[in-house]
Amino acid sequence: MTTADIGRLDGLTYPTGMAFMAGQYMPMSEARISVLDWGLLHSDVTYDTVHVWNGKFFRLDLHLARFRRSLAKLRLHVSLSDDEIRDVLVQCVKRSGLRNAYVEMLCTRGISPTFSRDPREAINQFVAFAVPYGSVANARQLKEGLHLHVIDTVRRIPPESVDPQIKNYHWLDLVTALFEGYEAGAETVVIKDTGGNIAEGPGFNIFIVRQGELFTPEHGVLHGITRRTVFDLAATLSIPAHACDMSETELRGADEIFITSTAGGIMPVTKLNGTSIGDGKPGPLTRALFDAYWAKHDDPAWSLTVDYDAP
Amino acid sequence: MTTADIGRLDGLTYPTGMAFMAGQYMPMSEARISVLDWGLLHSDVTYDTVHVWNGKFFRLDLHLARFRRSLAKLRLHVSLSDDEIRDVLVQCVKRSGLRNAYVEMLCTRGISPTFSRDPREAINQFVAFAVPYGSVANARQLKEGLHLHVIDTVRRIPPESVDPQIKNYHWLDLVTALFEGYEAGAETVVIKDTGGNIAEGPGFNIFIVRQGELFTPEHGVLHGITRRTVFDLAATLSIPAHACDMSETELRGADEIFITSTAGGIMPVTKLNGTSIGDGKPGPLTRALFDAYWAKHDDPAWSLTVDYDAP
Repeated sequence: MTTADIGRLDGLTYPTGMAFMAGQYMPMSEARISVLDWGLLHSDVTYDTVHVWNGKFFRLDLHLARFRRSLAKLRLHVSLSDDEIRDVLVQCVKRSGLRNAYVEMLCTRGISPTFSRDPREAINQFVAFAVPYGSVANARQLKEGLHLHVIDTVRRIPPESVDPQIKNYHWLDLVTALFEGYEAGAETVVIKDTGGNIAEGPGFNIFIVRQGELFTPEHGVLHGITRRTVFDLAATLSIPAHACDMSETELRGADEIFITSTAGGIMPVTKLNGTSIGDGKPGPLTRALFDAYWAKHDDPAWSLTVDYDAP
Repeated sequence: MTTADIGRLDGLTYPTGMAFMAGQYMPMSEARISVLDWGLLHSDVTYDTVHVWNGKFFRLDLHLARFRRSLAKLRLHVSLSDDEIRDVLVQCVKRSGLRNAYVEMLCTRGISPTFSRDPREAINQFVAFAVPYGSVANARQLKEGLHLHVIDTVRRIPPESVDPQIKNYHWLDLVTALFEGYEAGAETVVIKDTGGNIAEGPGFNIFIVRQGELFTPEHGVLHGITRRTVFDLAATLSIPAHACDMSETELRGADEIFITSTAGGIMPVTKLNGTSIGDGKPGPLTRALFDAYWAKHDDPAWSLTVDYDAP
């Protein structure tokens, strides 16, 4: 991604894109599930998301492997092999024509053929779709940095209730925090775990830089693929990186802050609860990781090129 | 409900019934929401359910009032008035022709017209539907009592994360417990709160009888309408009833156990983790409350008769 690319993130309209469900490809606008699907009525569903940039999937194998782990933990069954899922995702992107895409695969518990509430009797449903690439941060925020608030009135759902390594849609804690953050003038938010440490935000992990080293929360958060990518990049750049508890005081004292997500990559935070971080501009380590992250999108070891002309 | 009625609960098939969405009535099989609706993708949705028995809604006003409270807490907007929602629910039942129905109203965050992740920009979507009456307990279980397991490996999502008085679909804790319960030979399960006290099960509250008095958990659980109805009935029957913390030891030592839900009413539990409760049959207070509950379905103060012949 370059500064010129950033402008492309704005003004996209929904629903465009291409979906696959019930064994068929269809325009995104036609991809609808029954109101009775337990994926809606019990949020009994898992998913994974991957992005395509300049016609290339980024680290798709890691996303597929995590999707399989989430499925197994929830006892959900997708009849497609990994290769078949990969083919479906590639087809969704090809048929959408999108060079920059946000690609999601999900599996719902589905509907029982009888009125049974027994989840073992439901027919699981796999859905995949590709829509225009989107980002937690908009174009301006990517350049100048986000204004983040720590919200203290709601705590992230703890691992003893829902295993955060199962990628899930239990977001009411995050949505509640987001509304509070907006009211306080913030652009996004981060919430704490039930132990009072910093956890994560709506769809992203958080990192701080302190004296040239990286820190990110370890417990009670999704171990995101972009989070992992930061560790991989930090190793190549010889930046020490640590996953551990993070207090609000440590966050407030950071030299730099950034957030990570498949939806946006590495995104700088330059203001925290109304106070500038450092000189109020994206810091040097954040910029270095941002550049390394996007450069790796052309590395064949980490990417899969979509052949838009193949059948 | 009589013993003869109980047999009618089995063998129902989905999806039958009638739905209302986007301002139109449609067969249940056609009621589908976009895969991109945040109601699915973030479980950003609230709902309420009410039942119709012998052509009469039961305590609809209480369900409507709770739905409004849930909507307000989540900052979701339904443009219909309470009277208009009531009319929609009545129409769903009338058009379905069902004399015994499970009726649900829900409102999702909806979809943003742009790729924005800002929930304030999404267009909220109201959906209502009536399907055949269903029950947590099947016909045999209603007569003989359920086999319930206390599951200790997962804890109910705590109020500091999601307010349980907002009726919500964050059920992965309950579904996980249900699978474990089935494996252990149980028919349903109850889980504990993060403090280690008994909380609730998948779709129901739990009560115990001890020395002629009723006890039910108070904190970290939905205050169900059927739970409230038990308190109302207990008052008329001069049975002392208490909402307070309940330990697993207190549950195991109960004289009687029953569960309550709009989906099934008052349902006896006669076995707990493989051990019979009392003499292994539904107890006298459970039976008295069961009878009082169904008798109140003919009380005009608590019911609304559907006129199936009106336009």
